[in-house]
Amino acid sequence: MISKNQIRQIQALHQKKFRDNQKLFLAEGVKMVKEIVESNHTIIQELFATADFIFEHENILKSSGIKYNEISDKELEQISSLASPNKVLAVCNYFGETKTEVDFKKFFSLYLDDIRDPGNFGTIIRLADWYGIGTIFCSPTSCDLYNPKVIQSTMGAFLRVKVAYLPLEKIITDNNVGLIYGAVLKGKNIYAERLTNGLIVIGNEANGISKENLALVNHPITIPSHSANGTESLNAAMATGIIVSEFFRQQHY
Amino acid sequence: MISKNQIRQIQALHQKKFRDNQKLFLAEGVKMVKEIVESNHTIIQELFATADFIFEHENILKSSGIKYNEISDKELEQISSLASPNKVLAVCNYFGETKTEVDFKKFFSLYLDDIRDPGNFGTIIRLADWYGIGTIFCSPTSCDLYNPKVIQSTMGAFLRVKVAYLPLEKIITDNNVGLIYGAVLKGKNIYAERLTNGLIVIGNEANGISKENLALVNHPITIPSHSANGTESLNAAMATGIIVSEFFRQQHY
Repeated sequence: MISKNQIRQIQALHQKKFRDNQKLFLAEGVKMVKEIVESNHTIIQELFATADFIFEHENILKSSGIKYNEISDKELEQISSLASPNKVLAVCNYFGETKTEVDFKKFFSLYLDDIRDPGNFGTIIRLADWYGIGTIFCSPTSCDLYNPKVIQSTMGAFLRVKVAYLPLEKIITDNNVGLIYGAVLKGKNIYAERLTNGLIVIGNEANGISKENLALVNHPITIPSHSANGTESLNAAMATGIIVSEFFRQQHY
Repeated sequence: MISKNQIRQIQALHQKKFRDNQKLFLAEGVKMVKEIVESNHTIIQELFATADFIFEHENILKSSGIKYNEISDKELEQISSLASPNKVLAVCNYFGETKTEVDFKKFFSLYLDDIRDPGNFGTIIRLADWYGIGTIFCSPTSCDLYNPKVIQSTMGAFLRVKVAYLPLEKIITDNNVGLIYGAVLKGKNIYAERLTNGLIVIGNEANGISKENLALVNHPITIPSHSANGTESLNAAMATGIIVSEFFRQQHY
């Protein structure tokens, strides 16, 4: 059962201003919600699930003490942010403040300068999880971590990778970062350059790195293309993946 | 001006069955359409554009002989496949038959086994263009190249990269391909393995490579993760990008 008021409240969480106000966000689907329940169920405030999800997971739901409500498929459609809702929606509490100290002598990390596309952002969080980047930094104007599309496209990686929104200059100063790499169109070839620990700045999908942040980059790098006449650029998330892969490879192989 | 009948006909092209029937597809937005006009305007059957697009591009439109119609923003919204239409929509003719011979002694290529997400597919076509892969192969059940979301996310790369839908076995036989790499969860480490020209099979987003096609793979490969406890997989397009990058790097650097 779900009341009209609850439906309205959950629908409101599709929008950032209401999420920030309530400090609540949504995570959906069988696989995702199971992963949250198993890894960190204390972030779940309340679950809304269809009868068959509850039937299949009754033991774990009862033993974890999570508050859950049985709803119909039609009610799930009303509250879901997905085109094809999948049995369960979790209303979750925001994470606490993210620790923003990273030891750049030991690790490399990413700074996303005004990333906008939720799918790209979520995919990059998933990438960070794969390669063991514990904290990602974003400019304050970047896409919201708690956007349902970001959460869904992390495929659960948001549970492990921390995201902090800070100006680039502050991160550099606070962490005393020496090497500031920047993904640009005319930098040094990533395959030929020695890539060591530092902060990798990735620009906005349409406009690249802002002028202000570009001035802080001391190692401009580029993924070489096979020809000068082809495509102008790669998708931002894909370029990030290729660069992170090359950093990882040079350090481990 | 656009008639109600034209609006209906263009809206129908949002769906594959009508596209296949008419052998027509849509490409939208100022940058995309300009690129088509400049590179291969003969594929354009007709343009529908707002007054300011026509005003800004009148010379090139007239000199190319493209048939164009002035429409209002409201009419553009009706025919567009985009959430935010951008001044111009081109109705284009399908490409002819794709030549499916690739010299695998000289090049490597991709086989997408049942790729489904249009954004992933378009991004992979853009990747292929960047690294000079001239032809991509797809299983017959894969996402349609002419899906408007695919076309838009190629950012114009669909003009240069050919896509052919064929069973894997047929490509291997026709081209006498010796090395069939497959992206799997437990294969040889891409950074440690010597990667040479061949066909790289990429699996479906949720299910990986089909059992049937997996039997044809003779070099299973894997992108190593930093730990066994993290995320289960990477986004399919991103994994493809990392693998293609590593093939390219080993051959050129």
